[in-house]
Amino acid sequence: MKPIEFEGVKSKNTMAFRHYNPTEMIQGKSMKEHLKFAMSYWHTLCSGLCDMFGEGTLEKTYGKHAPMDIARAKADFGFEFMKNLKIEYYCFHDTDIAPKGDTLGETLENVGVMVEYLAVKQKQTGIKLLWGTADAFSDKMFMAGAATSPSADIFAVTAAKIKTAIDATIKLGGTGYVFWGGREGYDTLLNTDMELELNNLARMLTMARDYGRKAGFKGDFFIEPKPKEPTKHQYDFDTATCIGFLKAHGLDKDFKLNIEANHATLAGHTFRHEIATARINNMLGSIDANQGDMLLGWDTDQFPSDIYEATYCMLELLKAGGLKNGGLNFDAKARRQSNTIKDLYQGYILGMDTYALGIKIADRIIKDGRIDDFVANRYKSYKSGIGQKIVKGETNIEELTKYALDIKHITVESGKQEYLESIINQLMFC
Amino acid sequence: MKPIEFEGVKSKNTMAFRHYNPTEMIQGKSMKEHLKFAMSYWHTLCSGLCDMFGEGTLEKTYGKHAPMDIARAKADFGFEFMKNLKIEYYCFHDTDIAPKGDTLGETLENVGVMVEYLAVKQKQTGIKLLWGTADAFSDKMFMAGAATSPSADIFAVTAAKIKTAIDATIKLGGTGYVFWGGREGYDTLLNTDMELELNNLARMLTMARDYGRKAGFKGDFFIEPKPKEPTKHQYDFDTATCIGFLKAHGLDKDFKLNIEANHATLAGHTFRHEIATARINNMLGSIDANQGDMLLGWDTDQFPSDIYEATYCMLELLKAGGLKNGGLNFDAKARRQSNTIKDLYQGYILGMDTYALGIKIADRIIKDGRIDDFVANRYKSYKSGIGQKIVKGETNIEELTKYALDIKHITVESGKQEYLESIINQLMFC
Amino acid sequence: MKPIEFEGVKSKNTMAFRHYNPTEMIQGKSMKEHLKFAMSYWHTLCSGLCDMFGEGTLEKTYGKHAPMDIARAKADFGFEFMKNLKIEYYCFHDTDIAPKGDTLGETLENVGVMVEYLAVKQKQTGIKLLWGTADAFSDKMFMAGAATSPSADIFAVTAAKIKTAIDATIKLGGTGYVFWGGREGYDTLLNTDMELELNNLARMLTMARDYGRKAGFKGDFFIEPKPKEPTKHQYDFDTATCIGFLKAHGLDKDFKLNIEANHATLAGHTFRHEIATARINNMLGSIDANQGDMLLGWDTDQFPSDIYEATYCMLELLKAGGLKNGGLNFDAKARRQSNTIKDLYQGYILGMDTYALGIKIADRIIKDGRIDDFVANRYKSYKSGIGQKIVKGETNIEELTKYALDIKHITVESGKQEYLESIINQLMFC
Amino acid sequence: MKPIEFEGVKSKNTMAFRHYNPTEMIQGKSMKEHLKFAMSYWHTLCSGLCDMFGEGTLEKTYGKHAPMDIARAKADFGFEFMKNLKIEYYCFHDTDIAPKGDTLGETLENVGVMVEYLAVKQKQTGIKLLWGTADAFSDKMFMAGAATSPSADIFAVTAAKIKTAIDATIKLGGTGYVFWGGREGYDTLLNTDMELELNNLARMLTMARDYGRKAGFKGDFFIEPKPKEPTKHQYDFDTATCIGFLKAHGLDKDFKLNIEANHATLAGHTFRHEIATARINNMLGSIDANQGDMLLGWDTDQFPSDIYEATYCMLELLKAGGLKNGGLNFDAKARRQSNTIKDLYQGYILGMDTYALGIKIADRIIKDGRIDDFVANRYKSYKSGIGQKIVKGETNIEELTKYALDIKHITVESGKQEYLESIINQLMFC
Repeated sequence: MKPIEFEGVKSKNTMAFRHYNPTEMIQGKSMKEHLKFAMSYWHTLCSGLCDMFGEGTLEKTYGKHAPMDIARAKADFGFEFMKNLKIEYYCFHDTDIAPKGDTLGETLENVGVMVEYLAVKQKQTGIKLLWGTADAFSDKMFMAGAATSPSADIFAVTAAKIKTAIDATIKLGGTGYVFWGGREGYDTLLNTDMELELNNLARMLTMARDYGRKAGFKGDFFIEPKPKEPTKHQYDFDTATCIGFLKAHGLDKDFKLNIEANHATLAGHTFRHEIATARINNMLGSIDANQGDMLLGWDTDQFPSDIYEATYCMLELLKAGGLKNGGLNFDAKARRQSNTIKDLYQGYILGMDTYALGIKIADRIIKDGRIDDFVANRYKSYKSGIGQKIVKGETNIEELTKYALDIKHITVESGKQEYLESIINQLMFC
Repeated sequence: MKPIEFEGVKSKNTMAFRHYNPTEMIQGKSMKEHLKFAMSYWHTLCSGLCDMFGEGTLEKTYGKHAPMDIARAKADFGFEFMKNLKIEYYCFHDTDIAPKGDTLGETLENVGVMVEYLAVKQKQTGIKLLWGTADAFSDKMFMAGAATSPSADIFAVTAAKIKTAIDATIKLGGTGYVFWGGREGYDTLLNTDMELELNNLARMLTMARDYGRKAGFKGDFFIEPKPKEPTKHQYDFDTATCIGFLKAHGLDKDFKLNIEANHATLAGHTFRHEIATARINNMLGSIDANQGDMLLGWDTDQFPSDIYEATYCMLELLKAGGLKNGGLNFDAKARRQSNTIKDLYQGYILGMDTYALGIKIADRIIKDGRIDDFVANRYKSYKSGIGQKIVKGETNIEELTKYALDIKHITVESGKQEYLESIINQLMFC
Repeated sequence: MKPIEFEGVKSKNTMAFRHYNPTEMIQGKSMKEHLKFAMSYWHTLCSGLCDMFGEGTLEKTYGKHAPMDIARAKADFGFEFMKNLKIEYYCFHDTDIAPKGDTLGETLENVGVMVEYLAVKQKQTGIKLLWGTADAFSDKMFMAGAATSPSADIFAVTAAKIKTAIDATIKLGGTGYVFWGGREGYDTLLNTDMELELNNLARMLTMARDYGRKAGFKGDFFIEPKPKEPTKHQYDFDTATCIGFLKAHGLDKDFKLNIEANHATLAGHTFRHEIATARINNMLGSIDANQGDMLLGWDTDQFPSDIYEATYCMLELLKAGGLKNGGLNFDAKARRQSNTIKDLYQGYILGMDTYALGIKIADRIIKDGRIDDFVANRYKSYKSGIGQKIVKGETNIEELTKYALDIKHITVESGKQEYLESIINQLMFC
Repeated sequence: MKPIEFEGVKSKNTMAFRHYNPTEMIQGKSMKEHLKFAMSYWHTLCSGLCDMFGEGTLEKTYGKHAPMDIARAKADFGFEFMKNLKIEYYCFHDTDIAPKGDTLGETLENVGVMVEYLAVKQKQTGIKLLWGTADAFSDKMFMAGAATSPSADIFAVTAAKIKTAIDATIKLGGTGYVFWGGREGYDTLLNTDMELELNNLARMLTMARDYGRKAGFKGDFFIEPKPKEPTKHQYDFDTATCIGFLKAHGLDKDFKLNIEANHATLAGHTFRHEIATARINNMLGSIDANQGDMLLGWDTDQFPSDIYEATYCMLELLKAGGLKNGGLNFDAKARRQSNTIKDLYQGYILGMDTYALGIKIADRIIKDGRIDDFVANRYKSYKSGIGQKIVKGETNIEELTKYALDIKHITVESGKQEYLESIINQLMFC
């Protein structure tokens, strides 16, 4: 496979970038600094593209048989893949990088071995770890949760896996550590002590934070909200729920959100809404860049292709001043019918170009200024007079009542949604 | 219309109660004390059953023409209706009880006049106000929100309406004051400063709380979550979102949740989930008892008939030790084709019997004990040993890791969902 | 208001067309012949933008008071509006153009008077009627259906309204007559004889067809599928359901489908899927061009702005050889907060430019050829050998079994979804 | 495991039937004749309860290692399981009963061997095959469809598998043969020739029908509708779609519908709606008895526990005069956390009791008569006068118009939904 090059917007080559030009400057930073694209180890290197109704369509054993040989070959392929795509970061679960052993001890040792291997690959290539995480959901022992398991033993195993994954993250220089609560939720309230489970979840996050900080982790902890699947109700339902939970347990200084496009829509929100909610709480951490199918009720994890969504995501990112310890991880898999490695490359190219075009359009929107001006002007009544008193907390309901009774005429200004949507299309297609 | 009487489970009379027997004792309290049924003024006395595609099917002018005459006739009908149904509470918006005047001043005056009228009716009948609220959504001035309006003038008018409605609530002895954020949300982020709007919402709630407390209101303030409709995104999306918001703004001591069945499901949650979430946060306030259609994407506000849902609601209520300042308000309307007053009675009878049967079954479930025992036993590992240390916060991730590495065998106990569902059906149909 | 002019893609004027250039040629036909944009009388001229939670925000009485005066002023405004927007067609319900009288006779007479008025306006302006229809849903008598009403009297009134609307359509030269079954469905099966109702629906369509043909109507009858809202289940659920129904009742030669974007998605289908389904059945008739919100469960009827959707719609249209008796009707309303006439213009400009850009991109996709080539190539095994025998019906299961047992190696070719999506983005953003 | 016995409604034993009493008579037939419960081979004997996020939780290799040994042990267990549960029917896919071989020939031979084995088991136990089917979706070759595959070779392999499964069904005396179009649909229209695919699907069904009839199959062919999952759009979307398709291709005399509860709701319909639609078309064939989660967007295949749903299903069945060649197949799996064989038993007991209680209540509803009377009375205007002329096709739109103009007063009768729902609850809880 030849490295993928930037050929510009006129290129018809689907094995080249048309928009992703790593060193192109936007608002004073290069595209690659803004976007910090990351490869997802699991979908990209491990998933054989099976689904609930059928076997995998693409073998991912890399011509090897012994589990540790497969693990190394997988890493080799992955770093080659990233190099070819000019991707500088990756993300993993412990179970992605190393095979399960016969005992917990062996499993954790395997992780240790592979961390050494990855450290060498990083050094050789300059590729970095964006974030690590522990898979505390695929083993059958986690069927009823990990930190929220009814079994204290399973809670303890979870702790061991998290410790090991945090150690790995520190060792590999990752700037983030993610919690996706795979089975942290319930299937039926009939068998669930939700209060205890939520408290135990907070206890685990607290212990993990304390351990990480003690061990020298300087990055951010991330929670990744998801509303349902695999459990009927996942505790980390959406961004607002997670923020409330983190604040209630004093974790909001160390934790931020890792927001996934498809998880947002499953929760009934737009992707942009979730990012904006994190942003205004100063808790925007990282992005799982993928795309769902709005007519399907499960996480399809498609490569992002919708330029509208990418544009709004980038607009929020630019407003937030960028992602610090986070990046854009492609939590996306090729469709089950895309049964070749070439499809995998094309999936990434599609996704990277989608976001690269998105940030260029977001930049145009900001420079154009009409939308920001409209919004600023819309709320101008809070800049002076009674509005300013409201915002400063210098009035009360009695004063406002008196004021209201004296108003002669209320002006209700148009929200001008169609006008604003026209501007977006103008700036996208120009 | 003759008063509706309790005739018992064998009755085939659809104009009698089969389950609601006000003085029947359950767990040491009478049914009527547990349930505190309330009539919704708006659906019951005002709505003509129009929808977006057609006019009303049931005239609700009570043979009158002048607005204030209609208002009084409406109240007369309502109190008669409640008496006939043995309903002891009601709930209203300012706009339900009194007509809009030509000016804000006139409108508020009309409210004042009708509050006097209602006070007399209450005295005559013993019927009480459960909660009051201000309608800050139907007037076109609120099209972009009330406390979250882009206009400070409209914020002020909202304050005036809230003050008046709080005054009315106090005057009429209401134990709750509800905020349903009718238009507190957005239709598009393109025209919205979400951060300012959310802060303004908190400011209004704070001012309302401060005013109410100063004016002598001893009851609870309630937030009523709803995820969408009429705005695309309503800020009070669900219980978890509201709790997080209230805590972040220091309002969680004065505010509780008013949970509506149909709003729960629109947010992707079961009714029970929302009540349980409020309960474990000690913020369960009141219930809007209705029912949605799970295949429809809007708030259908049907009279509750599903005994499963009612049972789970009642189970949570009994676990929470009951509603203190809240009750069960039927935020439900007869179907548009149910175009007679008799249908309205039958809707209420259906709803009241549904909850009465629900509480009887919930009581059976608690007395049966198998479900509670199963849950208690499932989490017993947190009662001693390492589990107890986890719960008490006396361990850390390193100790847990050591412990985990020593575990010889992990037991993963069945969640037994089918067994538990069998018990529910046993206790429902016995 | 000045007429809206085409200013080209570089224009930043939101009161000008950037893409809709009526006389620009695409595949041998002008844009205006392809698109045949039509104004929806109801949303555009009648709707005051109320919703279920609040009053209208934009007065549409045109400074008049008497119902017939309003009706004429409405028509005057509408024709001026169309002229300004270079729209050459319109669509109406009987109730849009003329006020209800005290009796059915009066109501139908009012329609007759307004048809004369519209005929004159058409002559003066060159504007034409695209299609007419009867509103058999908004009057309370239709609460349980019109052709599917439990009352034969209401069935008869429906017939009278349909006859009048067909007469009006013929008189005004409309090339289509639409059936949207507003209340043809049910709210609960508990009170419904679905079999009788469906048969009565077929009876009405048959009688209407027979009458129309006898009266000289040469155009197409259109069914407009919608799955739910206002009734819980609408009989004309989606395109496949309607086609099956029309074929079963021998109506498929006279009837085609009028497909609405937002109705498609409410039924769980993409807009493109519905159009393609009609196309391959030779039953694509007309388009209700609007857009829904994929996170909301009701018909939002927004002005179309999504270029992806418009492109796929246009691609299907070009493949179908265009709409003959149909056109693109904007069944869309300005958002409730868009409370000015200028917003209404901007809504139409947005919608028209969206489809104009859509058809330009669709044309590019066809000329580029890569997507069509991929599909043709993918199915090439049906062009010869066993595949050809399958398609020609010249084989059977025994022969195929023998053939299958002899296959040495099965090739499973990639579906290349990511590649194809890349091409779409290339051709959209170039 | 001891056989499960009927102990009656007072029993608290969750390992006994409380409602399913096989020989109890209802409307002149025994419960077991009405219900014809069938075991699903796949979920019950094969599924290890894995999901997309984790491994299986319950081993189903029955202590064996060699594939054919497992296959036999599986059958042994299955027949024992059915005997214990008093289940007299089962259903299977070819791949459930026999392991895949190295070649298609070997695979089909394995099926043949196991068919012999099953024939013996049937003889020994009296247990019968309800229906058979071919799995043309799990092998990766079917990733783009089977009868709708872009490859004619794969179409041929599908034919071979169907022939073998039909042969097996005939040999084992099955009265039904099912088509569930696992991958008969598309993931994106960008790569799909929907017209060719639909025609090929019809060709396959036609060839299968012709082969089956020639080979002596006297039973019914069944189509099982499902709207989405695994493909984005499944061609057999819902009952109405399938009926239209079957009629268009002249297959409606040989084919009926196999309706699944959870597939109905995924398509936006109630289970009852789908059954009623099949019933009024005389195409109700068989039932896949399970239950979905209305808040989740995928097929959860839960054991049925909702008595409302079971009652409505049974009401339709009784109205249809029963299932002839079909039965009630539990297409249901224990929850992933229900990781024991005892849970599997309890799942079946739950499901069987749910339907047994459902048919008892349905019988009560019919005997009570109030609901049927209400419906009959509601449509009485079609029994005489103008209504009768409408139904007999003896009138036309002109006559109806004249009639309508003479109506003095239109009566619009209440739909009485709340009243009818009250009656249902009365008859359920009495």
